[in-house]
Order: sequence, then C-alpha cells, then structure tokens
Amino acid sequence: MTSIAPMTPLEPAEQESFDASLRRRAKAVIPGGLWGHMNAARLPEGYPQYFVRARGCRLWDVEDNEYIDFMCSYGPMILGYGDEDVERAAASQRAQADIANGPAPCVVELAELVVTTVPHADWVIFAKNGTDATTACVTLARAGTGRRKVLVARGSYHGAVPWCTPSLAGVTAEDRAHLLHFEYNDIASLEAAADEAGDDLAAILVAAFRHDVRRDQELATPEFARAARALCDRKGAALIVDDVRAGFRLHLGGSWETLGVRPDLAAWSKAIANGRALAAVTGNDRFRQAAQEIFITGSFWCAAVPMAAAIATLHKLHATDAVGHMARMGERLRAGIEAQARRHGIGVRQTGPVQMPMILFDDDPDLEKGNLFAAAALRHGVYLHPWHNMFLSLAHGEAEIDQALEATDHAFAAVAQQYG
Amino acid sequence: MTSIAPMTPLEPAEQESFDASLRRRAKAVIPGGLWGHMNAARLPEGYPQYFVRARGCRLWDVEDNEYIDFMCSYGPMILGYGDEDVERAAASQRAQADIANGPAPCVVELAELVVTTVPHADWVIFAKNGTDATTACVTLARAGTGRRKVLVARGSYHGAVPWCTPSLAGVTAEDRAHLLHFEYNDIASLEAAADEAGDDLAAILVAAFRHDVRRDQELATPEFARAARALCDRKGAALIVDDVRAGFRLHLGGSWETLGVRPDLAAWSKAIANGRALAAVTGNDRFRQAAQEIFITGSFWCAAVPMAAAIATLHKLHATDAVGHMARMGERLRAGIEAQARRHGIGVRQTGPVQMPMILFDDDPDLEKGNLFAAAALRHGVYLHPWHNMFLSLAHGEAEIDQALEATDHAFAAVAQQYG
Repeated sequence: MTSIAPMTPLEPAEQESFDASLRRRAKAVIPGGLWGHMNAARLPEGYPQYFVRARGCRLWDVEDNEYIDFMCSYGPMILGYGDEDVERAAASQRAQADIANGPAPCVVELAELVVTTVPHADWVIFAKNGTDATTACVTLARAGTGRRKVLVARGSYHGAVPWCTPSLAGVTAEDRAHLLHFEYNDIASLEAAADEAGDDLAAILVAAFRHDVRRDQELATPEFARAARALCDRKGAALIVDDVRAGFRLHLGGSWETLGVRPDLAAWSKAIANGRALAAVTGNDRFRQAAQEIFITGSFWCAAVPMAAAIATLHKLHATDAVGHMARMGERLRAGIEAQARRHGIGVRQTGPVQMPMILFDDDPDLEKGNLFAAAALRHGVYLHPWHNMFLSLAHGEAEIDQALEATDHAFAAVAQQYG
Repeated sequence: MTSIAPMTPLEPAEQESFDASLRRRAKAVIPGGLWGHMNAARLPEGYPQYFVRARGCRLWDVEDNEYIDFMCSYGPMILGYGDEDVERAAASQRAQADIANGPAPCVVELAELVVTTVPHADWVIFAKNGTDATTACVTLARAGTGRRKVLVARGSYHGAVPWCTPSLAGVTAEDRAHLLHFEYNDIASLEAAADEAGDDLAAILVAAFRHDVRRDQELATPEFARAARALCDRKGAALIVDDVRAGFRLHLGGSWETLGVRPDLAAWSKAIANGRALAAVTGNDRFRQAAQEIFITGSFWCAAVPMAAAIATLHKLHATDAVGHMARMGERLRAGIEAQARRHGIGVRQTGPVQMPMILFDDDPDLEKGNLFAAAALRHGVYLHPWHNMFLSLAHGEAEIDQALEATDHAFAAVAQQYG
C-alpha cells in the first residue's frame, strides 16, 4: 500500500494574494503556470487566473471579486453558468449512467436532434474537443475524396495539434505538407490556392467567420461563401465549416445558414452542451461511407451526461430564441460602447457579429489602449478581453448590459485620461 | 424564433427489442450506428449496444439485463461506477464552478498530487483525450530535442488521429513520415530503428505493456525497458511511456515503476478521474521549457469538476491499495479460469497483468471459440471481451469474481460442447 505526503492546504500566504499564491505554486508543477488560451499571463495585469464560483453570466475569483463575464469560458457557456434546466437533465442522466461499455439511449436522441437542427447534416459523430472535430473533418474529406490538399485561411485558428496549432514548436514540415493558404473573404486567393491543389483538392476548411485574434473580425461575405461552395462542387471537394467557436450563436442550424450556403462537413464544440465536454462532426450523405472507414474514438466520447446536457441545451436554445436574444443584447452593448467612445473622443472598432463582440482601438498597434480599457473595466466588475472575440449568452439581460456599460464608461475615461 | 419537430419517443417498436430499435434509429443518423471502439458490431451477436444503468462493477442494458462488467468502460472506471467519494467531490465542485475563464484552485491541488504520486513527474498538463496526451508527448519530444523521428512498436495503439489511428482511411503518408517501427520487447529491433533515425531521434514512444488486440499480451521485460532508457540517454532522445490504458492499475506512479525505469514523458487518461473526461501529460524538467513553447489547449481542459473527481480518485486509489486489490482479484479470476479450462479440457492463454485480463483460446485463429465463450458468459450475466484486454476495478470483490466464474464455467461447457 502506497501513501502520499499530505498536501499544503490551498490558502493564501501572508503578504500575498490568494491568486498570487496559487500562481506561485502552479508554476512549480505546471509549465508556465497554465497551458493554452486561459493562461492569465496573456492578459493585462490585474486579471485573475482562478475562479471559485460561476452563476448566470457572473464569475467570482478567489478574492471573491464578482465579474459580469463577457468571455463565457471562451464560448462554452451559452445559457448561463449552472443553467438549471441543463443541470437537471445532466443530474438525472448521471443518476442512471454516464460512462459504460457503450452509450446510453440519449445518444440516439441527441443525434436525431442535431440532424433535425442542422440542415446540412445527414449524420453526426460526437467527440470531446473542437480539435477532435476539425481533425476528423479533414480526415473525412481526405477519406471521402481520395485526395490530400486542404485549403485553409491564413491566420485562422482550427485547433491545437501539429497540423493546425499556432506555435510551430514541435511541429514538422510534414504535419502541414498538404495545407494551402488563402486570404479569408478573398475569392481570387481561394481560387489560386485551389489551382495549386490541382486534382488533389480534398477540402476547403473555413471558419464560420474571420475571428482571428488581435485584428478586426469579418463576417464571411455571401459572395465568398457561394464561391467556396461552387468551387468545391466544381472540383468534387468537401466544404468544411469550422463552427467550433461560433456555433449556436449566429444560427442554430450552422453559422453559414445566415448566408444560404451549406457545407458538406462541419465541426462543432464549445457551446453545444453549455460547458460540458462535447464536440460534434456533422456531415452529409456524401461522406457517410468515409465516416465509417476512418477510425476515430476516445475514452469518453460515449459518456452520457454531456449528451443529456446537450439535449437540454439545444432544446432551450430553440425554445428561448437564444440567438435573437444574444443579437439584441449584443446590439445594445455595441450601441452603448459606440456612444461612449464618441463621447470620450476615442476611436474604437467593433467588428463581427454582435453576439461575439470584438472591441479594438484606433491607433493602438501594441494594444496598450485596449489593455488599459479592459483592465479598467475589470476593476469595475466587468470581464472583457482586450484582443480575443468575446461572447454573449442567454444569461446576459438588459440589466447586465447596462451595468457593464457603466464599467466601460469608467474604462473609456481612463483611456481618455491617458491618451486623450 | 426557430422550432423543431417533436422527436419520436425512445421506446421499443413492436416485434423488435429496445436495443434493436435504438440501433435501427442510430444507423440513420450516426455512420455505422456508432463510431469507434464501443461499436457493438465489433462484438459477437447478443452483446448490447446501449446501457441505462451503472453501479459498482455492474451494468444494465436497455432490456434490464444485469452484467458483472470486466471492461470498466474500456478502462476509465477503476473505483466502481458511481463511486460515492468521487461523486461527492465532483458534486461539491460543481456546486461552485466547473468551467470559467480559468481553472478553479483545484487544478493546483491536482497538479501537486500528480507530481507527488508520479516519481518521474516534475510537472503536469491536463487535457481530455488519451490521444491529446500521446500527441502532446510526441510534440513535446520534438520541441525539446529539435529532432523529428519517433520510434513506435509495430501494432501498438496510441490513439485515433492520423499519425497513430489503426485505419489508414484519410491518412496521408506525411502524417507518419517520421515514425520508425520496432517490435515490442525486441531490443535489437529497437536499436536498428534508432540507427535508422540517426541524429534525428526525438523519442521512443512505448505502451506500458504490449496490449494489442487479438493477441497475447506481453509485459515489458526489464531488459527491454532498461535498453530503451539507455538508448534515449545515449542519443539524447525522450523516453515516452503511453500509460493511457494501463495507468493506475499496475502502479500509481506509472506502470514502468514496476520495472525500475522512469520515462521523460508519459501520457495518461482513462482511469485518472474514475470516468470523467480527463487526460494528463507528465514530464521531467528537461522538457519543461518545451512544454511552455508548444501550444496545446482545448475548450474544456480547465474544467474543474473532472479535476475534483481526479483528486478524489487518486486519494482513494492510494488509501485503499487499489492496485493490490485488483491484483488479488485478478489472480483469483485467472486461477479460476485456468482451473475451469483444464477441467473442460480446453486450452486457453491468459496473458499480461492480472489486473487487465486477456483470455484467448488455443487453436482459435478466427476467434470462434473466444466469441462463443464470451457470448455464453454474457448470457450468464458477465460482460467479457473476446479479443481486447479487460479491466478489473476496486469494485470487483471476491463475490463478484466467484459469481463471474460460475458464468465462465457455463461458457467453457458451451465451448467444450461445440469444440470438445
């Protein structure tokens, strides 16, 4: 029988905040303190790294500071943290079974619900990470077409494994040997990349809209979307929409439904189960056979609780017109920010869909104004992001938007004082 | 506001079992009825696809048949389905926060616990899938060494993305351009592969033991493990142990602790949180810098509930001597099976660690005896696997082993009747 040393309790040391104490201890046992996109070292000073409570659209850090949250856990939260309907469905499924040697019946219910909700979908496969879904889409396109080249927009984020991750550390040239690049929304560059692929074009992989970090967002133009569809049809390639980040915020049937263009394959994750780990690949019948030939799986991909949560999430998204609500609240936030910026004499750019706000400042190449603005808003109880798109949810009501706008007014004043 | 058609209730049709009805509906919306390793089409007739209840070491299918389960959800269940200590810890964390814009403090507690438990670990990163962890290990080895070649054993399973998945559909040659193969436990073949890699050797990636499907299992020999370690030391490469499947069943500190050999990097998942979606990469300080340079992340990788479940799981594994218990129960099962086989005059081979049983029949190239045996045991209430290693758990006690042996006695009789 083994034994382990008792752990030092997780509590603040003297003359050190609890957050600082946790960060210090984390640095010893987690490289850089935290992996990936949630590492607070990427954010201005003052941002908390750890959270102890989440309810509705509010978060509390370890010092018990309360924030109205406009990141929604970088997308997964769409109905509100701890949404009662989702929690009830999840708890009910958990009381029966979560993992087993196969799925629970709810996998069938969820699959039928997804196929009913997403017009292009004849079928669906579930996974855990958004990267699972984008990688599967690329594999499916290659298996279904017998070709290799995949066109991706320069700078688009499609996940965090060697073929797509932003850092090139540990990546070999071969990992990306069959990717060709185009500029988002640029039809000529898309066609040039397709020409380069020749008769080896397997797929065009395109984000629901251009939501690259540190730059203005761009909705896909209808002309671009139609050109991508036409090109895939002409070449016999697969059109893949990466809806991992945007999915269920622009249109429940897929973000490109707003453009009247349907993909062959789509990748989903983040908001599909209001925060429980789930991803999905949807596809049409052209790729059904390929989906049976590739082998993708994971230890937890059949877990029933996230599926029950997803069923409850999708039903509530349908029943509440969550997309319409997020659009209205996003408009309210955008109009308020716009008026404040004008009043303070500060130039800002708000781009992309209102449900997924991005606020960048004019003449701000190093994001100094944006960082100052976000840090000041944070001190006034609003969690914004200075250079990544943000997210609204069904839990953001008029009162929360208006409370947030009080904070941003203070934040604009801080920017005006420094840069006015 | 959108609306969706009401779903047909999930209930059996006339003249069709509930399981058959669910499979029929699933086939329409999920390619092949189910993705991956849990597709019951891979198993003999009579195996259920769906489960409605799980408790302790028992599962119930949709027809309410009860089984003593020797697959443990293919590994994740290690303390028992619905283990009360784990469920209490998870529920307590969920009442506070699961996802947020950063982790909960328990990420620090879990990281410290893992580093305390696993001797080779100076640090840990958490993820969701076993494949996340194996892929990260390979990326880390390349980032840390600046080299590309990775030696893997022919036939070993390391995940289900293009660089490692068993099906070649949708896989390009470049996805595996830098893999070189050796035979598990064959030092000469390992050294030949290393010679081929020359000065471009980044890593040896090796499963905790040889647990390939459809063949006898093999524990790693101490000589092989030491040779792999020495080779990595001599060449400056990383030794990676894939402990995703075996982790926490042979030794809490890593399966190769039983051999006295420590890897530089290890991949973990499955049993780490008793069924909640979690994976981990552990590494030593040599690869800490690389771990900060690569970019790996996922939407749910900071979720707090699976981490709270993992803390409770690891503490209970320590406190109960779960490894010793599983070894004793595995010995009891193996001895019982051995005696029955002899009595029925049937040749079987039980290989690998007793905590992860594999039962294969002599003179059974098409697994017909094995399939007959497993299907007969299933009818007597015991869920075995005819060609994949099985798993014991802390919830398998003497009574359950003895009850299972009653079923296998009937199953041996069925095999003897057909083949005797």
